[in-house]
Amino acid sequence: MTNILTLPSACDFHIHLRQDDMMKMIVPRILEGGVSLCYVMPNLKPPITKTDQALAYKAQLEQLAPNVTFLMTLYLTPELTPEEIRKAKAHGIVGVKSYPRGVTTNSDSGIESYNTYYDVFKAMEEEGLVLNLHGEVPSDADNDVCVLNAEEKFLVHLKQLHHDFPRLKIVLEHATTKAAVDMASDTIGCTITVHHLQLTVDDWAGKPHNFCKPVAKFPHDRQALRDVILEGHPRFFLGTDSAPHPDNLKECAQGAAGVFTSPLTMSYLATILESFGSLDKLHGFACVYGKRFYGVSEKQGSGREMRLLKESLTVPKNYEYGKDGDAQKGRVVPFLAGQVLNWKVVCE
Amino acid sequence: MTNILTLPSACDFHIHLRQDDMMKMIVPRILEGGVSLCYVMPNLKPPITKTDQALAYKAQLEQLAPNVTFLMTLYLTPELTPEEIRKAKAHGIVGVKSYPRGVTTNSDSGIESYNTYYDVFKAMEEEGLVLNLHGEVPSDADNDVCVLNAEEKFLVHLKQLHHDFPRLKIVLEHATTKAAVDMASDTIGCTITVHHLQLTVDDWAGKPHNFCKPVAKFPHDRQALRDVILEGHPRFFLGTDSAPHPDNLKECAQGAAGVFTSPLTMSYLATILESFGSLDKLHGFACVYGKRFYGVSEKQGSGREMRLLKESLTVPKNYEYGKDGDAQKGRVVPFLAGQVLNWKVVCE
Repeated sequence: MTNILTLPSACDFHIHLRQDDMMKMIVPRILEGGVSLCYVMPNLKPPITKTDQALAYKAQLEQLAPNVTFLMTLYLTPELTPEEIRKAKAHGIVGVKSYPRGVTTNSDSGIESYNTYYDVFKAMEEEGLVLNLHGEVPSDADNDVCVLNAEEKFLVHLKQLHHDFPRLKIVLEHATTKAAVDMASDTIGCTITVHHLQLTVDDWAGKPHNFCKPVAKFPHDRQALRDVILEGHPRFFLGTDSAPHPDNLKECAQGAAGVFTSPLTMSYLATILESFGSLDKLHGFACVYGKRFYGVSEKQGSGREMRLLKESLTVPKNYEYGKDGDAQKGRVVPFLAGQVLNWKVVCE
Repeated sequence: MTNILTLPSACDFHIHLRQDDMMKMIVPRILEGGVSLCYVMPNLKPPITKTDQALAYKAQLEQLAPNVTFLMTLYLTPELTPEEIRKAKAHGIVGVKSYPRGVTTNSDSGIESYNTYYDVFKAMEEEGLVLNLHGEVPSDADNDVCVLNAEEKFLVHLKQLHHDFPRLKIVLEHATTKAAVDMASDTIGCTITVHHLQLTVDDWAGKPHNFCKPVAKFPHDRQALRDVILEGHPRFFLGTDSAPHPDNLKECAQGAAGVFTSPLTMSYLATILESFGSLDKLHGFACVYGKRFYGVSEKQGSGREMRLLKESLTVPKNYEYGKDGDAQKGRVVPFLAGQVLNWKVVCE
């Protein structure tokens, strides 16, 4: 029996780090979770649409976690130009994130049709920037579109984009369905979250801390995600979509979408992968395949080694942020709060 | 344009009236909602498994609402005998409710296999008692069973029961899927709730007050329910499954399943039926078909007339129960709280 795993520290290719006090609570915990390189989502208030904003945000993050490498993205909006793409590339920005309008947290600035962005995509393809897709179409009851098939119904757009920009690297973020998994190709990768490897629709029915977008779906969909991990498929890699919200905005009449996993990323992941017999795939999934797809050198962001010890660990009931007496003070309930995980992270 | 509808007061063939202070709040409101006959669910703590318990509960309800007719059921458990069925019949009890174990509120005492109940079903068929089925199998990820297909996967059991007891009247309660709707026959009817005519899966994603079991499903499933209403199909009738829970047990980490509609039953229903062009079907669906299926005389429980006026009505944010200073004091948030309905009930 394996009781110690030694790995390079991991990469999280989809993370929400927020702003202000919540950011200050989360960012120092990234490394505690065993992650030393992360790809930072741009859906702030206001969204990060310009290189300069992204660099300023990156500087804030680096100050909070000097030993973590932050790869930055821009939020796709009609203001984004091919010139801005070239500027972004010159300043080390790695990709552009597209949100369908209104589908998830802070996505009001999101896209409606991809055709208007073809000049931008062309520039991205030329410059080697990655396109990150929140792959859901908005719900539309008249056409039988709802949160359960919003991802599958999106795939026609992914196909079209891939056809029109075959060399553009595209990541279908937080894949949740068999249909999505089947889309992977040379230039199409998928991130998979920790929580979608664990949850099905039953787990978010009435349980707001497991509710996220895209929603967890049928058991056979979860199995499809597990199967590509078991296979060691190089186009599927870790992107947690860790997305904290204050507990009072989750446990309420209309709860926010998002699951918070950052402080314990690798403890969750090792426990869950072990549960379906794929602990030997942890290294490739969490440390190798993402970097390769993005063309990030193996060295970048992995100066350190991580040890995972097989020891019980109870997930905290919540994480506090803000200061006593501060109106911004609050709590975030993490994924599987109060439950026991089987692996502990030791970052050296 | 119709601005006044005059109908006999309505029948709700599936209602949860609870106990103690909550019961005292709900029961007087049944008539306010335009309902004067209701079929009362037996999932109390402890469940109503005997005729004597049912009659005692009925007496409590009648005291709180002397002008409402309460039809009573027993909770199917292994202790139920053919003798008890005959006794129940002799005392005016109308049916027996079966809950698959662990599927919904207070269903721990529910059934696991129907074969052990065949003597009871035979007696029910002979005596003319109705079998009420909560038609869901328990979730089982290994076999791809989850809350989304739990009803459809149940239908094989319904088919078998109908085959073995062709003259036994069976109600598949709170039908939510196209597959369930297709099961109706001479001796199989379905109740349809108010909320399942309005909601899809999107509406309970992160929204605990719309979360119930069975869960609302795809838009095409909702359309199948609407279609049988539009058709005026006599095997589909109102059963609200109104199921109040205190707001603090809904807005929390693990919310209870149930939607509360009783105080405004006919206001909701008229508004929703009108929204999909079937206001002319309100009478049959809410006042006629259920009684016919159950063999309840037209006169029973409808000594009064109800008028529905086309006037705006804002749904209260909550209904309080219990007394100030009482530990039992609480609030229930009704369906569509704070939203505007288009029809008001006037019971004469």
